[in-house]
Amino acid sequence: MEIQTPYLLFLGDAPDALAAKVAMGIKQWHPEYCVGQYRMDTCQADCQLPDLDIAAAKAAGAKTLVIGVANRGGIISPAWIDVLKQALHAGLDLAAGLHNRLNAIDELVDLAKSLGRQMFDVRFPTQTFSVASGKRRKGKRVLPVGTDCSVGKMYTALAITEVLHQRGLKATFRATGQTGILVSGAGVSVDSVVSDFISGAVEELAPANDADHWDVIEGQGSLFHPSFAGVTTGLIHGAQADALVLCHEPTRTHMRGTPEFALPDLKTCMALNLTMAHLTNPAAKFVGISINTSQLAESDAYTLMATLEKEHNLPVVDPFRQGVERIVDQMLAL
Amino acid sequence: MEIQTPYLLFLGDAPDALAAKVAMGIKQWHPEYCVGQYRMDTCQADCQLPDLDIAAAKAAGAKTLVIGVANRGGIISPAWIDVLKQALHAGLDLAAGLHNRLNAIDELVDLAKSLGRQMFDVRFPTQTFSVASGKRRKGKRVLPVGTDCSVGKMYTALAITEVLHQRGLKATFRATGQTGILVSGAGVSVDSVVSDFISGAVEELAPANDADHWDVIEGQGSLFHPSFAGVTTGLIHGAQADALVLCHEPTRTHMRGTPEFALPDLKTCMALNLTMAHLTNPAAKFVGISINTSQLAESDAYTLMATLEKEHNLPVVDPFRQGVERIVDQMLAL
Repeated sequence: MEIQTPYLLFLGDAPDALAAKVAMGIKQWHPEYCVGQYRMDTCQADCQLPDLDIAAAKAAGAKTLVIGVANRGGIISPAWIDVLKQALHAGLDLAAGLHNRLNAIDELVDLAKSLGRQMFDVRFPTQTFSVASGKRRKGKRVLPVGTDCSVGKMYTALAITEVLHQRGLKATFRATGQTGILVSGAGVSVDSVVSDFISGAVEELAPANDADHWDVIEGQGSLFHPSFAGVTTGLIHGAQADALVLCHEPTRTHMRGTPEFALPDLKTCMALNLTMAHLTNPAAKFVGISINTSQLAESDAYTLMATLEKEHNLPVVDPFRQGVERIVDQMLAL
Repeated sequence: MEIQTPYLLFLGDAPDALAAKVAMGIKQWHPEYCVGQYRMDTCQADCQLPDLDIAAAKAAGAKTLVIGVANRGGIISPAWIDVLKQALHAGLDLAAGLHNRLNAIDELVDLAKSLGRQMFDVRFPTQTFSVASGKRRKGKRVLPVGTDCSVGKMYTALAITEVLHQRGLKATFRATGQTGILVSGAGVSVDSVVSDFISGAVEELAPANDADHWDVIEGQGSLFHPSFAGVTTGLIHGAQADALVLCHEPTRTHMRGTPEFALPDLKTCMALNLTMAHLTNPAAKFVGISINTSQLAESDAYTLMATLEKEHNLPVVDPFRQGVERIVDQMLAL
């Protein structure tokens, strides 16, 4: 799945900035993909991009309108359809990562077909994949893994990719979830792949590459999450990562969505991730710990990170506060 | 998915007994489901059931024609279509577990629809599942796990179910693969479930039950298989098994389909399975080891099992040679 850039970011009728989180992510990580934003009258979010109507976006070179907003329920809103149709008429493709599909809305399907436009529902893979071979492949790979879901794995992966690029090194971010796909324009939503093919999909997503090329694979879920550990296991095996980064949110009181389940301690979590990773890459090592300290005061955050650094003898950073330079140093020293 | 019994077993043009393995399994485990077999002129397999044509099968009470044969390629053969249409006309449903779908063959779909018949493609779940909650549920559950794929997990589960029934205990076999579904008439092919829902599908397949009821859940894959461990992980977490049985084939030289991967030793394999199982059931324990010794001479088989029994301090049996009584004793002693 390769979505044409640049994008017009559709913020629709977002009731607040959080609702436009996907658009914000695209703007943050790939400002060069974004020619402007489209906001309806009631929109309360702002990506600080030029406000463009469809014709102006087309004139500015936009190839795809990306739905960067999630309303309550996470579905494509009937209130958006007119704008989406205008975009198709103007020659733009559409992309969305919501729970229902652009390709399930008849009037959009018919119009896109008659105009020769593409509509990408990035949550739903359209490819078929092979069963994983487990065969070792060339190139280097790094994979963030988590104590829990939503602890900063995508952010960490994107930050690592950026640092590698800044240093002039060969690196590709490999998205495995809908937000990552919309941020980067390509990828596979692995939690939507049929379970026989999880590892195979990741082998295909991050294929053999130059010996000095890094694939930075977005992590998913957690081996300690009772709902999603199957996805995480398949992803780890398919990734054959050389380097693992542990991601953690220190104020989380239980596994996301499952109040009966406590978070693992970091040592236990790293040990099990290594056990699983070693099956397909016996040389896999942790190269750092990435802590999302957004819920902590600055001084508490730095105290915590210093303690963890001593305890685990690895670089410990908050990618948002400090960047991931030190983790990348450790990766490159492998 | 609940397939109506009794069955007419369709052996088609099976070139040898192995090709009719699914039919043989149904006959072995549920002879009471089988009113007869249908063999085409060139059929070389025999389930030792009355040979019935469609009209005779209907008269004998058959509700479903089950395709119990897999030709090379595992697809529904054009040579079978006439018989399948006769069966629909006679009022039988159809069931198959092959790579292509009965429901993708237009002439069968149209005919089944016009006659109000059902066609079950058991490899492809038609339900949607919820994400697993991980919430502990009542009832007892036992799960065979393997050093590899195809080492006897289904056979072991069916044998355990049979012994529990013989002892007058409440037990249900829960099929998780296409052969198990055709053998038992119900289940979910978990390796075909979208990966986000593996554990959720198993929670639904083996729901809360009476405190003294055993769900005997068919295992899939292996935590040590680089292609399928994601499925196995999700299955273990969803199962919340109280009892685990390790299944092993001692002559296997490498993991099935992946020559680069050695089999784990039994201790390592049991330890990782326990680690994973303890996430959703901290009390999970191994209650036995089930060895498929079909490739060994009898004396070698018994010597091996005696050695393993001493080493692991658990009942070690070949379910085919000795039955699983001793494993069931250990389960019930938990």
